[in-house]
Amino acid sequence: MTQCIDGQWLNQGGASFESTAPYDGQTLWQGFIATDNQVDAAVNCARDRFSQWRQTSFEQRCAIVEQFAQLLEAEREPFANIIAQETGKPLWESRTEVTAMLGKVAISIRAYHERTGFQDHAQGVARRVLRHRPHGVLAVLGPYNFPGHLPNGHIIPALLAGNTVVFKPSEQTPWCGEQMVRLWHQAGLPAGVLNLVQGDASVGQALMAHSQLDGLLFTGSSLTGAALHQHYAAQTGKLLALEMGGNNPLICSEDYGDLDAAVNTILQSAFLSGGQRCTCARRLYLPNGSSGDAILERLIEVAQRLVIDTPFSLPEPFYGALISPQAAQRVLTAQSQRIAAGGRALLTARLCGQAMLTPSIIEMSDADTFFDEEVFGPLLQVFRYHDLAQAVTQANATRFGLSAGLISQAQPEWDYFLENSRAGIVNRNQALTGASSESPFGGIGASGNLRPSAYYAADYCAYPVASLEADCVTMPAVPIPGVVW
Amino acid sequence: MTQCIDGQWLNQGGASFESTAPYDGQTLWQGFIATDNQVDAAVNCARDRFSQWRQTSFEQRCAIVEQFAQLLEAEREPFANIIAQETGKPLWESRTEVTAMLGKVAISIRAYHERTGFQDHAQGVARRVLRHRPHGVLAVLGPYNFPGHLPNGHIIPALLAGNTVVFKPSEQTPWCGEQMVRLWHQAGLPAGVLNLVQGDASVGQALMAHSQLDGLLFTGSSLTGAALHQHYAAQTGKLLALEMGGNNPLICSEDYGDLDAAVNTILQSAFLSGGQRCTCARRLYLPNGSSGDAILERLIEVAQRLVIDTPFSLPEPFYGALISPQAAQRVLTAQSQRIAAGGRALLTARLCGQAMLTPSIIEMSDADTFFDEEVFGPLLQVFRYHDLAQAVTQANATRFGLSAGLISQAQPEWDYFLENSRAGIVNRNQALTGASSESPFGGIGASGNLRPSAYYAADYCAYPVASLEADCVTMPAVPIPGVVW
Repeated sequence: MTQCIDGQWLNQGGASFESTAPYDGQTLWQGFIATDNQVDAAVNCARDRFSQWRQTSFEQRCAIVEQFAQLLEAEREPFANIIAQETGKPLWESRTEVTAMLGKVAISIRAYHERTGFQDHAQGVARRVLRHRPHGVLAVLGPYNFPGHLPNGHIIPALLAGNTVVFKPSEQTPWCGEQMVRLWHQAGLPAGVLNLVQGDASVGQALMAHSQLDGLLFTGSSLTGAALHQHYAAQTGKLLALEMGGNNPLICSEDYGDLDAAVNTILQSAFLSGGQRCTCARRLYLPNGSSGDAILERLIEVAQRLVIDTPFSLPEPFYGALISPQAAQRVLTAQSQRIAAGGRALLTARLCGQAMLTPSIIEMSDADTFFDEEVFGPLLQVFRYHDLAQAVTQANATRFGLSAGLISQAQPEWDYFLENSRAGIVNRNQALTGASSESPFGGIGASGNLRPSAYYAADYCAYPVASLEADCVTMPAVPIPGVVW
Repeated sequence: MTQCIDGQWLNQGGASFESTAPYDGQTLWQGFIATDNQVDAAVNCARDRFSQWRQTSFEQRCAIVEQFAQLLEAEREPFANIIAQETGKPLWESRTEVTAMLGKVAISIRAYHERTGFQDHAQGVARRVLRHRPHGVLAVLGPYNFPGHLPNGHIIPALLAGNTVVFKPSEQTPWCGEQMVRLWHQAGLPAGVLNLVQGDASVGQALMAHSQLDGLLFTGSSLTGAALHQHYAAQTGKLLALEMGGNNPLICSEDYGDLDAAVNTILQSAFLSGGQRCTCARRLYLPNGSSGDAILERLIEVAQRLVIDTPFSLPEPFYGALISPQAAQRVLTAQSQRIAAGGRALLTARLCGQAMLTPSIIEMSDADTFFDEEVFGPLLQVFRYHDLAQAVTQANATRFGLSAGLISQAQPEWDYFLENSRAGIVNRNQALTGASSESPFGGIGASGNLRPSAYYAADYCAYPVASLEADCVTMPAVPIPGVVW
């Protein structure tokens, strides 16, 4: 089944497409690219259902969201299996994604009240009341790297706030998207409140351009995000929330502490999920001299022993296939470009299975080009530095600003780093990939449009309505100048 | 003196311009349009000063803001006089503007902590810390209708959050802008933290286009706001907060209560400040039949007795001159257009002094055109309706969405209205012009870009930085799959 419009599953559309397991090419899901008419129907249906959904009480909406979580809890293992198959992620990691999805419920409910709650105060003869109102119909465009967790992080707060949704999963993870929407309907979500359209960029474009859309929540590449931002130019009233990529720096100080623990933090930062997290470290800054040499030597040693395998293999792999053979090829191309620019491959990525790459570590200190782009895979660029100030300046020299990290035991170094880093996530002695759903999440520059998500997703899922309310009109106690009765 | 860059007052620039009292044409202020070089110097100076200003403690910044308020309190009467002279607003109303400016301080400090505060929680071996960071250099483009209060509502939260500012007042109120900046420097604000450039749209455009600007906070027309939004297309990382106009409806129910109190609420909504508030009611919906007739009759009767005079006249006027003779002419043109379109003038605006207009009330129920635009003056369009649902549908039929109001004693009518209104400010039995600084303020559609100001100004003056922090790196308690040491 492909589209789901007004609760009806439709196994039809335009051109057919399929989702395959990246690691063996096996077909997992077959369906059809939504036609413009289907996109139109999905948005119009969401529009029609908006009024009723908004008028259900928060408690009712909440009960459905909690029911969704219960069903997901019961389906935890099968859903993790689907994620693993469709993305190539290890099963153990896919399980953590489902855990994150479940955790989103309580966090979103708390954020709804804290960030967009109801307030009522006396003000003279009237009351000053603050409510928050859903925008209406929101499109959610999901990414492939967390095909459950990331759209879920938009959908739950959007529904709690009373919006209706049209969800387009990544064309590389339609199966995960379909399963999510199935669970929502099983949980009792009324038909048409969450609609599903499947397909490629053409579907995203049709959605984006629909006049009945009140907003669009996007997680994905900076290129697509910038195109969305361009599209909505001068359309001030359309809510657009963008979470995009990064070119994230991780600085390791001379005072890094335990060698293996430091190396572990670097590995988790650079290569977790095969480098397919937007928060992954792309640039590692190491001090000149022996302490940096020691880190680098041990890093290369352990990195080349990382287990990379299919999702269900034993022993469990550290990471698995990238999302597609094309994605793996893009990383290899990026590796070649860096070497051609004077980078020195300390560890050379090579294919080790379908869409599967060993890690790449490239020393770029002497390269003649600085590539300020996101390579979405297991490629880490190393730069050596002579003092922290220099490292921080270089770390900041990016048009992105999603995450940045420091490994250091020295408090003054952390104080300096924290003060001078330009990113929305700034970690100390913790992997860059370890963001908490209980915090806001978002980047600056080309990494976002200053609509942070995660804990602050509540903010962009509703707008405030400020009221002054009195039971009846009254003449002012003090006459207003210039009015003659 | 004209520009103030890095604490230096410069009485030079490009072409000269002056500010005149709208009601008698007397020259109040003379200066020069900032050159591109001056704009460049102002922004670069703000950039240079940013790091140091950000690193001052919140307490230090707060102390300067409170000192500003103390000085303004001491200058309350002279400052109100300047506002009155430059805008043509009655002195009594100009005094309320200064009061609103003073009130902004405590509100902004509370909002800073509540909306963008510091949080610190244990998370495993680490701490999850949330901070908020200023964007950097923000431009504030001020309007003329509240030349003190509205830019002040951006400047105070922007400075509290640690941003530096380049302020361009409206070219119609440069004197008010200059006085504000003087007070800030007297209050001990370090040189270059708040810079002033004066002039027309050319200065706004040079500011907007400056590469070192991190964001722009604008209050003004929808046309200019949309142009700014267009300019920043695809520049995702630039913060843009827009507060624009409205075409605001006020619905009066049959159950309006006390006749004079209802009429008073309508007068305050439509004609306060001569209709030069963005929240002013532009459209009045009255029930068909005798109850609507009674309201209308009394409204016309009292409206034609409104005292309209110069700011310091006695008896005190209800409102004074519009901002300029051109502004008054625009209202007269709008009046003619409506009459030409089949509107029936129930009260015809006419010039009653320089830039001074009597109120216009036009019955538009039978007109052949719906003018979905903001006429920024004392022009009220009346529409008759047969039931509330019809009135609400018509009220919502605007591309704007700033304010909307209902006059009714009937709770079910209010419930219906509240549920179905599309606006950021929705009042009951209270003038539409009575928004509270303690609430967020902002509109939807063409009225804003969903970055509400007033109480939520704190939100857009900073972005969240989420951290996971540990004193040192540690190996995970549970080994991570696929890493071989």
